[in-house]
Amino acid sequence: MPEVAKEMEVPKRILLGPGPSNVHPRVLKAMSMPLIGHLDPEFLKIMDQTMELLRTVFQTKNRLTIPVSGTGSAGMEAAFVNFIEEGDKVIVAINGVFGERVADLLRRLKAQITEVRAEWGRPIDVSRIEEELKKDRFKAVAIVHAETSTGVLQPIEGLGKLAKENGALFIVDTVTSLGGVPVKVDEWMIDVSYSGTQKCLSCPPGISPFTVNERAIEVMKGRKTKIPSWYFDLTMIEKYWGSERVYHHTAPISMIYALREALRLIIEEGLEARFKRHFENYKFLSEKLGEIGINYLVEEKYRLPSLNSVLIPAGVNDKDVRKRLLDQYDIEIGGGLGVLGGKIWRIGLMGYSSNKDNINLLVNALKDILKK
Amino acid sequence: MPEVAKEMEVPKRILLGPGPSNVHPRVLKAMSMPLIGHLDPEFLKIMDQTMELLRTVFQTKNRLTIPVSGTGSAGMEAAFVNFIEEGDKVIVAINGVFGERVADLLRRLKAQITEVRAEWGRPIDVSRIEEELKKDRFKAVAIVHAETSTGVLQPIEGLGKLAKENGALFIVDTVTSLGGVPVKVDEWMIDVSYSGTQKCLSCPPGISPFTVNERAIEVMKGRKTKIPSWYFDLTMIEKYWGSERVYHHTAPISMIYALREALRLIIEEGLEARFKRHFENYKFLSEKLGEIGINYLVEEKYRLPSLNSVLIPAGVNDKDVRKRLLDQYDIEIGGGLGVLGGKIWRIGLMGYSSNKDNINLLVNALKDILKK
Repeated sequence: MPEVAKEMEVPKRILLGPGPSNVHPRVLKAMSMPLIGHLDPEFLKIMDQTMELLRTVFQTKNRLTIPVSGTGSAGMEAAFVNFIEEGDKVIVAINGVFGERVADLLRRLKAQITEVRAEWGRPIDVSRIEEELKKDRFKAVAIVHAETSTGVLQPIEGLGKLAKENGALFIVDTVTSLGGVPVKVDEWMIDVSYSGTQKCLSCPPGISPFTVNERAIEVMKGRKTKIPSWYFDLTMIEKYWGSERVYHHTAPISMIYALREALRLIIEEGLEARFKRHFENYKFLSEKLGEIGINYLVEEKYRLPSLNSVLIPAGVNDKDVRKRLLDQYDIEIGGGLGVLGGKIWRIGLMGYSSNKDNINLLVNALKDILKK
Repeated sequence: MPEVAKEMEVPKRILLGPGPSNVHPRVLKAMSMPLIGHLDPEFLKIMDQTMELLRTVFQTKNRLTIPVSGTGSAGMEAAFVNFIEEGDKVIVAINGVFGERVADLLRRLKAQITEVRAEWGRPIDVSRIEEELKKDRFKAVAIVHAETSTGVLQPIEGLGKLAKENGALFIVDTVTSLGGVPVKVDEWMIDVSYSGTQKCLSCPPGISPFTVNERAIEVMKGRKTKIPSWYFDLTMIEKYWGSERVYHHTAPISMIYALREALRLIIEEGLEARFKRHFENYKFLSEKLGEIGINYLVEEKYRLPSLNSVLIPAGVNDKDVRKRLLDQYDIEIGGGLGVLGGKIWRIGLMGYSSNKDNINLLVNALKDILKK
C-alpha cells in the first residue's frame, strides 16, 4: 500500500518549541464532536459563549471579541487591513521577526511607516515612540507584546494612553502573551489586539483570537476607501458574530469547539494562577539550565516566561542537538530565526506544555546529549 | 454554573444544507490526534501526502496543490489577490451569490471587471464570455463551477482553452463541486482553482483546497506590484509547502490531519464511484420530492447533484418548516439567499451526507410537516 493511502500515524511529542504547544485531551475531544451548521441556533450559542470566554482572557468588555478564521497571522492581517489605508502614517516597533512582519504587511497596504527599532533580544525603548508621536500625526502605533522570535516581553503599559492622546490607534500583537502573562486590553487602552491559539492557550492552530474596541470600529467605519480584503472585512464579519447573524463565510466550526474548551480550561485554572504557573516554570527552567551552563539571550526583567531564548553553548551543533532531542527523546524545541539562527534555542513553556515534568525531561535530555 | 463554563453539548444533526455536511467518524478521529510541530519531519510527510491526495481529487499534476489556511472564501481571496493587480481586466461570470462575491473581491483589488450575467438559477451562456474575450485583452476569466446559492452546475469544458488562446488565466471556483462531480483541472485547462472542505469532501470547514499551475505561477512572478496580502502571499507559502520548507505561518495542523483522512476516504471509494453515488442520490431525491409535489428551480441538465435547490410550495412558510425540521427531526436544510430568499430550499447531498437513509428521513419529515 502506498504511504499516502495508509492510516495516519502521529508520534507523541513533547512540544517545547515556539508553538504549537501540547493540547489538553479535553480540547482534542471537543474538536472531535460532530459538526452542526454555522447558523444552527445551538452553534450560535457556542459562538456567544466563545466570545464571552475570549473577553475574560483578553480582560476586555469589547463587544467585537471573536476568533478570526485563520492562524495568528490572519489575525494580524485583519488587525491592519481594516484600519489602515493607503498613505496612513503608522509607527511600528521592530525588534524581531514579528515586528518585521507587521512592517511588511503595512508596506503592502501602502502605509507610511516610521520604524522604531531595537536590537533583536532587547525591548523597544518606549520613550522613542513617544518622541515620534510628538513629531507628526499618526493613524496607529503597532507593537508586539511578546516577540516569539527573541523571547522579549515588551513593556507596553502607558503606551495606549500616549497613543490615544495623540489621536493614534494602539494595535498590539499578543500572539505569544495571551494566556501566559497578563494582557489587559481595557486597562492598557489597547484598541486592537490579535493572538494565536497554539501558544499559551494550548489549542490547535488555525484560528486567531481578536478584539477591537468601539473607538477602532469608528475609525474603520470612517474609512475613505473600501477594505481591500473580502475575507477579513470586519464590517461583514461583525454582522455574523453580532445579533444580525448574517452569513459571511462558513465558520471553522471544529476549531471553535476546540477554542471554547481551551478557554474553559483557562477559566477553570484562573488567569492569575495560570500566569503564576508560567512564571514559576520559567524560573525552574532557568535554574536548571543555569546548572548546565546554559544562559539566556534576554536580560532578566524583559524575559517572556512562555518563550525562553537561550544561547547555544560554544562548539555545540544547533541542528544536531535539536534532531537528537526529537528523534531520541520526542522533544521539540525551536531554533533561532533570522540573525539569531544557529545562535539561540527557543524553549517554549506554553499552556499545557508548561510543567515541571517537561522541564526535567528536557534538561536531562540536554545533559545527556551535550556531555557526549 | 453559568452556561459558558459548562461542558459543550452538541446535538446530533443530519446535515442536508449547503454545507457543512456530516463528517465521517474517521475524519473526527484523525482531527483529534495529538499535535506535532509544523516543521516536524513527520508533519512534513503528512503535508506531502495531503498534497498528493489533493492532486488526485483535483485531477491535476500541479506541484502547488495545497490547502490554504482558511475556509473556502480564503481560497477565493488567495486565487485573486496573487494574480490580479490594480487595473487588470477580468471577465467575471455572475449567476448567484458566489459570482457576486468574486466580483466584490475584484473591485476591492481595483480590477476592471466585465460582468457576464445570467438569471439566478440559470447557467452562464459561455458564448457570451467568448464574445467578450474577442473584444479586449483580459488578465483572467473567473467562473463558479457549482453555484451553491442556486444549485446550478455550470458547463466549463472548453472555456479554459478559449481563455488560454486569448492570453487570460482561467480561475474556477470548485467549492461545491470538488469530490461530488468531476473536476478535471488539467484536462479542462484550469489555471487556478479553490474549493472548500465542508461540502463534498465532508471534512470540517477551516481549510481550502487550492491548486495553481506553472502558467499562473509565471503570471504571479511577473507582477508589477507587491501582493497586497501577507497571509495569502503564495510566493512565500510555496516555500513552506515546497522543498525549501521555510516557515511562513503556522499550518492549521489538526485541520490538515482531518483533510488527509477525508481525502483518503474519497480515494478508497474511488472518484468515479463517488460521483455516481452523488448522482444516483440526487435522482432518488428528485423522484421522492416529485411524489410530494416539490419541484426543482434549475433545468434538469444543469442541476448540481450535491446541492438541490427546490421551489417552496405556495402557501408554505419557509422558516417555520426549516425550524421544525431542525427542532423535531434534527435535520438541517438551507434557505434561499438574496433574490431567492423565501423562494427555495437548498438541500445538500454532499459527501458523507449523500445517502438514501438521509433522503428518506428528510422526505418523510417534509411529508409530515407539510400535511399539517
